Amino acid sequence: MAKLEQTIADIQPPHERVMEEARRRQDNLTKPQGSLGQLESLSIQVAGMRGSPAPRINHKVIFTLAGDHGVTEEGVSAYPPEVTPQMVYNFLRGGAGINVLARHVGARVVVADIGVATVLEKHPNLKDKKVAFGTRNMAKGPAMTREEAIRSIEAGIELVEEELNLGMDIIGTGDMGIGNTTPSSAITAATLGVEVKTVTGRGTGLDDKGWERKVEIIQRALDLNRPDPKDPIDVLSKVGGLEIGGIAGVILAGARYQIPVVIDGFISGAAALIATLLSPQVKPYLIASHQSVEQGHRIILERLGLRPLLNLDLRLGEGTGAALGISLVEASLKILNEMATFAEAGVSERL
Amino acid sequence: MAKLEQTIADIQPPHERVMEEARRRQDNLTKPQGSLGQLESLSIQVAGMRGSPAPRINHKVIFTLAGDHGVTEEGVSAYPPEVTPQMVYNFLRGGAGINVLARHVGARVVVADIGVATVLEKHPNLKDKKVAFGTRNMAKGPAMTREEAIRSIEAGIELVEEELNLGMDIIGTGDMGIGNTTPSSAITAATLGVEVKTVTGRGTGLDDKGWERKVEIIQRALDLNRPDPKDPIDVLSKVGGLEIGGIAGVILAGARYQIPVVIDGFISGAAALIATLLSPQVKPYLIASHQSVEQGHRIILERLGLRPLLNLDLRLGEGTGAALGISLVEASLKILNEMATFAEAGVSERL
Repeated sequence: MAKLEQTIADIQPPHERVMEEARRRQDNLTKPQGSLGQLESLSIQVAGMRGSPAPRINHKVIFTLAGDHGVTEEGVSAYPPEVTPQMVYNFLRGGAGINVLARHVGARVVVADIGVATVLEKHPNLKDKKVAFGTRNMAKGPAMTREEAIRSIEAGIELVEEELNLGMDIIGTGDMGIGNTTPSSAITAATLGVEVKTVTGRGTGLDDKGWERKVEIIQRALDLNRPDPKDPIDVLSKVGGLEIGGIAGVILAGARYQIPVVIDGFISGAAALIATLLSPQVKPYLIASHQSVEQGHRIILERLGLRPLLNLDLRLGEGTGAALGISLVEASLKILNEMATFAEAGVSERL
Repeated sequence: MAKLEQTIADIQPPHERVMEEARRRQDNLTKPQGSLGQLESLSIQVAGMRGSPAPRINHKVIFTLAGDHGVTEEGVSAYPPEVTPQMVYNFLRGGAGINVLARHVGARVVVADIGVATVLEKHPNLKDKKVAFGTRNMAKGPAMTREEAIRSIEAGIELVEEELNLGMDIIGTGDMGIGNTTPSSAITAATLGVEVKTVTGRGTGLDDKGWERKVEIIQRALDLNRPDPKDPIDVLSKVGGLEIGGIAGVILAGARYQIPVVIDGFISGAAALIATLLSPQVKPYLIASHQSVEQGHRIILERLGLRPLLNLDLRLGEGTGAALGISLVEASLKILNEMATFAEAGVSERL
C-alpha cells in the first residue's frame, strides 16, 4: 500500500505554461490554425505532460498484462481459459496481433504475468508479477482479497519503474485474460452506476443466449458482493481482475512519471476507471486510442471525457489499438517539431 | 480523351477468389474472428485489389496536386491565393504537414502543378502538368472548358503512370489550392443533388458572414452554369478545379493498375465523386482515411459507402489524412502476413 499511496501523492498536473508555448508554436506552423485537429491538441497535451514544448518520442513501451478469471467457470467466454497462457507464449514468440502492430510502430512489448492460473515457463522477456493463480469466481464471492487487489496495482507500478531506465517516452496498455470483459463490465456498472446490460458486450463472440447469461452472472456478482462505488479498491477486489489492477497501476505510474498513457480498449478502460477514481489527477495523462466494439467502452470514454483517435471496430485487446494510437501521438509531435512556420517558409498568413 | 477512355475501359474488378483466400487466413490467425475489425476487412479488400492473398506494401506514394481557383476573387477563402505557390515551395523544401506525415509513414510525395496561377520555378521534384493558369471564376461562367477538364484528369493518370516503374503498392491523394473547398462543395451539391448549405463548410476558417457569402457564390455558380449531374466532366468543367480533376485521374489510374487508393479529405472526396461517376468500378479500390471537419465530406463518404478509419477532426488537405491512413492499411497487411495461426501457435480455438 505504501508504494500505491506514494505514487498517487507524487502525481503532478501537466505544465500549463509549456502547453501555452506548444500551442503558440502550433499556431505559427504553415497550416490554418486548428486544421490538424486532434493532432494539434495531442501534441499540446503531451508537451504539458512532459514539461517540454518540443517533446520527442524515442522509446515506446506497451505493457501487456495477463491474468485469469475464476468466473470463466460460469461459461461467460467463447474461449477456454487455457488460451490465456497459450497466448502469453504466443506473445513471447512474437506471433500475436500485438507483436505485429508493436513492430509496425516501433514499440517494445513488456509481457507480464499478473495472475495467470498456471505456472508459466520462465522466459527472459516474461515478467513474473504473479499475485495469484487467477481470481476466484465473483459469482460466488469476492474475486480477490483487498490485499491482492492492492498488490496487483503495485505490480503494475513496479513494471513501469523497472523499465524506466531503458527509456520510456510513451506507454501503451494492453491485456490478455480469457473472460476479462466480464469483470470489466462489472467494474463499469459498479463505478458508473449504470445498468449491467448497457455495459455488457459479446466479448470474444458470445451468441444471444451466452450474452444473456453473462449479464445475469455479472448482476449476480454485483448483488452478492456489493462493491462500494466510492472505493475503487473495493470494486477491483470484489468484481475485478488481476491484470485490470495491474493496468491501473501502469496508468498511475505513467502519470507519476509524466509519461503519456495511450489506453487500449474496454479492459484498459475499466482499469482507467479504477485509476482515475484512485486519483483524478491521472486524467490529463490519458489518451484513448480507439473505441472498442464492446459497448461499455463508449460509456467509459464519455465519462472520462476522452475522444478515441481511431475508428476501426477493434475488440481484440492485447494493446493492439494502443499501438496504433502511439503512432498517431508520435505523428502529432513530429508535426509540432518538424513543420515550418509561416515566417520560415515565406508563406502569407490569413487575410 | 483517348487516355481517359482507355483507362476506364481497363479497370477490372477485385479478385473475389483471392479475397476468399485472404479471409480464410484472417479467420485462422490467433484472435477471435473479426476482432481486428476494419484491419481485417482492409487486408482482405487490398488482397482482392492486388490479386495476391498476401500483398506487401513496399512503395507508398502520395500525390499532392496544386491548382488555383478564379472564384477566390469573390472572397470565398480566409487566405490569399498567393499561398498556393508558396505552399508548393514549402512542399518541395519538406516543411509542410504532408512532408512530415509522409516521412512518418515512409511515403514519398509527388508534388504536381496542375493549374497554379503563376509560373513556378523549375524543381527536380516538381511535376509540371499545368493545364491552365488557374480556373476562371465559376460565379461568372464555367471554371474551365470541357477540354481542360479532360486534360486535368489525364494529367493525373499520367502522374501515376510516370511513377509506376519506381514501385507503387499504395497511393494517397492530396490537394493544395486556396479556395478549393468552394468547387468541392459545388461538385458535391451538383452530383448528389443536395442543398449547397448542407455541403458547405468554413474551409480554412471563414466566419459566419464569410460562410454565408460562400454559400451564395456556390449557388450562383450552379444557377449560372447548370452542370449536368449525369455528366461528371460537365460538372468538373463548370464548377470544378484543375487539381480536383487531377486527383480524379490519380484515382482512376490507381484502380486501373490495381493499386489501393487512400483518399484524403473533402477535396479528394469531390474528386472521388467525379471518378466514380466516370466509372463505378473505381469504388472497390477506394479507402477513406478520415472524415474531414468539412461537412460535405461526410455526405460524400456515406454516398460512396466508405467508412473513415481516423477520427481526428482534420481539415488541412495536402494528403495529410491519407498519409496516416496508408500506415493503417500497411498495418492491416502486416497482420495478415505476420500473425501466427492457431495451429502454428498451439492456441486452442473457440468452444
